[in-house]
Amino acid sequence: MVLAKDLSHLLSEEAKARRPSPLKTCIKYFNDPNIIFLGGGLPLSDYFPWFDISGTSPKPPFANGIGAPLNEQELINFKIPRDKIDVAVDEEFGTISLDKALQYGFSQGHPQLRNFFIEHNKIIHKMDKYEDHEVLATIGNTWNLESALRCLCDKGDYILVEQYAFSSTLAAAEAQGVKTCPIPMDADGIIPEKLEELLAKWDEKKLGKIKFLILVATGSNPKGLSLPEDRRQKVYELACKYDFIIIEDEPYYFLQTGQYYAAEDRPALSDEKVPHDQFVNGLVKSFLSLDTEGRVLRFDSLSKVMGPNTRIGWISGQKNLLAELLKFHEVSIQSPSGFSQSIVAKTLNEWGQEGFLDWLIGVRKEYTIKRDFCIDSLYKHIPKKLLDDKTVVVNPPIAGMFFTIDINPEAHSEFKSKYEGNAKLFEQHLFEKVIKEGVLMVPGAWFEAKDYTVTDKGGIEEPKKEIFFRGTYAAVGLDKLDQGIERFAKVLESEFS
Amino acid sequence: MVLAKDLSHLLSEEAKARRPSPLKTCIKYFNDPNIIFLGGGLPLSDYFPWFDISGTSPKPPFANGIGAPLNEQELINFKIPRDKIDVAVDEEFGTISLDKALQYGFSQGHPQLRNFFIEHNKIIHKMDKYEDHEVLATIGNTWNLESALRCLCDKGDYILVEQYAFSSTLAAAEAQGVKTCPIPMDADGIIPEKLEELLAKWDEKKLGKIKFLILVATGSNPKGLSLPEDRRQKVYELACKYDFIIIEDEPYYFLQTGQYYAAEDRPALSDEKVPHDQFVNGLVKSFLSLDTEGRVLRFDSLSKVMGPNTRIGWISGQKNLLAELLKFHEVSIQSPSGFSQSIVAKTLNEWGQEGFLDWLIGVRKEYTIKRDFCIDSLYKHIPKKLLDDKTVVVNPPIAGMFFTIDINPEAHSEFKSKYEGNAKLFEQHLFEKVIKEGVLMVPGAWFEAKDYTVTDKGGIEEPKKEIFFRGTYAAVGLDKLDQGIERFAKVLESEFS
Repeated sequence: MVLAKDLSHLLSEEAKARRPSPLKTCIKYFNDPNIIFLGGGLPLSDYFPWFDISGTSPKPPFANGIGAPLNEQELINFKIPRDKIDVAVDEEFGTISLDKALQYGFSQGHPQLRNFFIEHNKIIHKMDKYEDHEVLATIGNTWNLESALRCLCDKGDYILVEQYAFSSTLAAAEAQGVKTCPIPMDADGIIPEKLEELLAKWDEKKLGKIKFLILVATGSNPKGLSLPEDRRQKVYELACKYDFIIIEDEPYYFLQTGQYYAAEDRPALSDEKVPHDQFVNGLVKSFLSLDTEGRVLRFDSLSKVMGPNTRIGWISGQKNLLAELLKFHEVSIQSPSGFSQSIVAKTLNEWGQEGFLDWLIGVRKEYTIKRDFCIDSLYKHIPKKLLDDKTVVVNPPIAGMFFTIDINPEAHSEFKSKYEGNAKLFEQHLFEKVIKEGVLMVPGAWFEAKDYTVTDKGGIEEPKKEIFFRGTYAAVGLDKLDQGIERFAKVLESEFS
Repeated sequence: MVLAKDLSHLLSEEAKARRPSPLKTCIKYFNDPNIIFLGGGLPLSDYFPWFDISGTSPKPPFANGIGAPLNEQELINFKIPRDKIDVAVDEEFGTISLDKALQYGFSQGHPQLRNFFIEHNKIIHKMDKYEDHEVLATIGNTWNLESALRCLCDKGDYILVEQYAFSSTLAAAEAQGVKTCPIPMDADGIIPEKLEELLAKWDEKKLGKIKFLILVATGSNPKGLSLPEDRRQKVYELACKYDFIIIEDEPYYFLQTGQYYAAEDRPALSDEKVPHDQFVNGLVKSFLSLDTEGRVLRFDSLSKVMGPNTRIGWISGQKNLLAELLKFHEVSIQSPSGFSQSIVAKTLNEWGQEGFLDWLIGVRKEYTIKRDFCIDSLYKHIPKKLLDDKTVVVNPPIAGMFFTIDINPEAHSEFKSKYEGNAKLFEQHLFEKVIKEGVLMVPGAWFEAKDYTVTDKGGIEEPKKEIFFRGTYAAVGLDKLDQGIERFAKVLESEFS
């Protein structure tokens, strides 16, 4: 096997200037039995005011679904002690005892947690194309992006983004003075041919080097799109050819709900256990699994599959790049919360890799049910006339938790007169009216990536003519979802009748 | 009461450019009963795989000390349920139920946690001099500094630091291209007269505006010094006069162990309960308590008084500045871990403010015992001759967990010949020898703040002539501490005999 390519020329000035924290380098002596450690301000664990932490979680295989009420036999009762445990036993049972969990150290994540992610990666992504890959436990994908921006980009640097991208990603880059160049998308996500066109004519002298492309390749946010494998391969080849990093930000990766079918054509969701190889092989190939050069950084998160504020995620990629991120983490976040690491590691290790797959299969099933219900509900409530003449277009997603509804402003009788033909003005009007009606959906404007290559050339970006709203079926139960969609449809009806 | 001064001119370009994350602004609708929330990807709490989390912690007043083994009556058994609890009852008992704790939202910290810190601040700092102060729950002081640097400093900006400062603070600033200007210190910490001298001749045109002064005013790191109140007042007045922010980074604030006395003169540590007003009134006045204009940001952390990897701390200061930090947190850390918030809030609220004071009093007592033992041990093991002729000087701290030992390199027979009169070369040699002897202490070089005003003027900074080592009595028990110091002393003896 080969080693990852040296990509240190893509690091930011800040990353290049960052020396490892000397105090962090000496923490290794803390557990050295030959060294008496008078080196760093690590309080004795005798003074941590917790003797143990216990919890209850569901037990695999979650046969009745992940949200089902359970009886005593379907529960796992776990206990995390404070006291030092023999390390071998400790690791065997995946327990990070509180004396270690609540202490400084292990900025990369405790082995009990990190090893679980490493094993999980092997099952899902294989990662057999280069040798020196690594995993860092982190506090989630919002942070992962922050870390990548700081370690890879200087003010004025360009990154490539989806034409419609996660608004917090855009906001983080913008504040740092990192410029975005949007890649055109169609119903399958970013278009490799358009990307190549853009790269071929990239004026590096004027615009500088592109540092990375970031995308939510599966269940994209806002669009709910998933990039087909052939496009992933083409995009990856372009990254190699034009020498930039690909960041796949994949919080929704396991919510691959598949094609939507109208109720009458829909195959019944089986109650039988999905075989794990069928589940794993059915997942769209990740960029990580295609990576031969070590130029993919993958962001995974437990936010959407276990709970957002566990604040646990992980970054996978080549060792040398991750070492740069880690150096930054040591002087910023330090490490994920010890309670989070301990509770999450204990739960995952009690489940085992197979149990975690069961859980992910269960989560996917719930979102498939909700997705189907949601799209059914949209077709039920939105006036047929508006759908037929394409005033309103519903876009059923094949992954994730978001759906979008395109709206043709030209079909509105007062679009020219009252809204001066300004799509964004009309979109904002709809947004406010929708809230007044008692439902929150998010206007497309929040997700539009700015094209700085236009302004850098002294041009003015044309205002977008498309209007869409992003909704989610994640945040409420089915009843409320139906009611919310009904309210939204009512606004459409009143506006376009 | 007055409002805080507008200090927005001290914000970084990045902070000024940062717009609030639009998705975060709409999370307020998530708990609005009139709005059906299809706005953001918040998973249903039914899918969080934990039904409850329980724990055991000691019960105030911790009569036998904070590290003592306890019987059943001296324990608190707490339980944090998943299910929604009536909000009023919920807040009364300080429980952040898991459905809320593990969900997105409350980037500033859940009220059950944040309100505890607000009440605590009232007891300790009064904060009665301006009206619009605020508290943000965060993931600890390392982060708090990162956040302040990003929100207040641009590349090339100056900050003022202690001549010997926390190495991670220096490393974080250095990587970001933020320049440090050291303030001379004596045995009481930074010297206001020297600071004023420095400010009076500050060439703002050439060097730019000073954004803030950061210091560990109590139990300083590495020196273990504590700034007397009259100096705090003078430094604060200079901040007002010369218009910069003071950041007091105070992880060791409650470890005010007081003057060291030799064993024969030492007053016995009473076993009686310390009255709370005596404890509170005996604490050195914080910068926060002096602040009339809203130009102090105070960093507090639970790392040193409960456990480092709880990753819970808080920032106190004026509302408008904290709003800028919060906007940054929303696109980076999001919020402290839900498990951490929940467990810490539950523990603190079970204890109550009085119980927390009992805990802090107990922590201080432990560190007082350890400090005394440590200094005794140093005087016992270091050869008397080296102490008498001041080849070695022990500096007993009055707060914190660090002590320093000054070493006079000139007293070494081969200093000129073998080490070419280079103090830092000799210090490094000692460091390596000390590790070889089986003890880790940290060389002073790690804490030296660079003076960029010298290099900015084209000069070369003179190498330091002082040698010292920083040790801590935090990380090991008394036996090991004695043994470690004995090993260290052995190196001194062999080097200087």
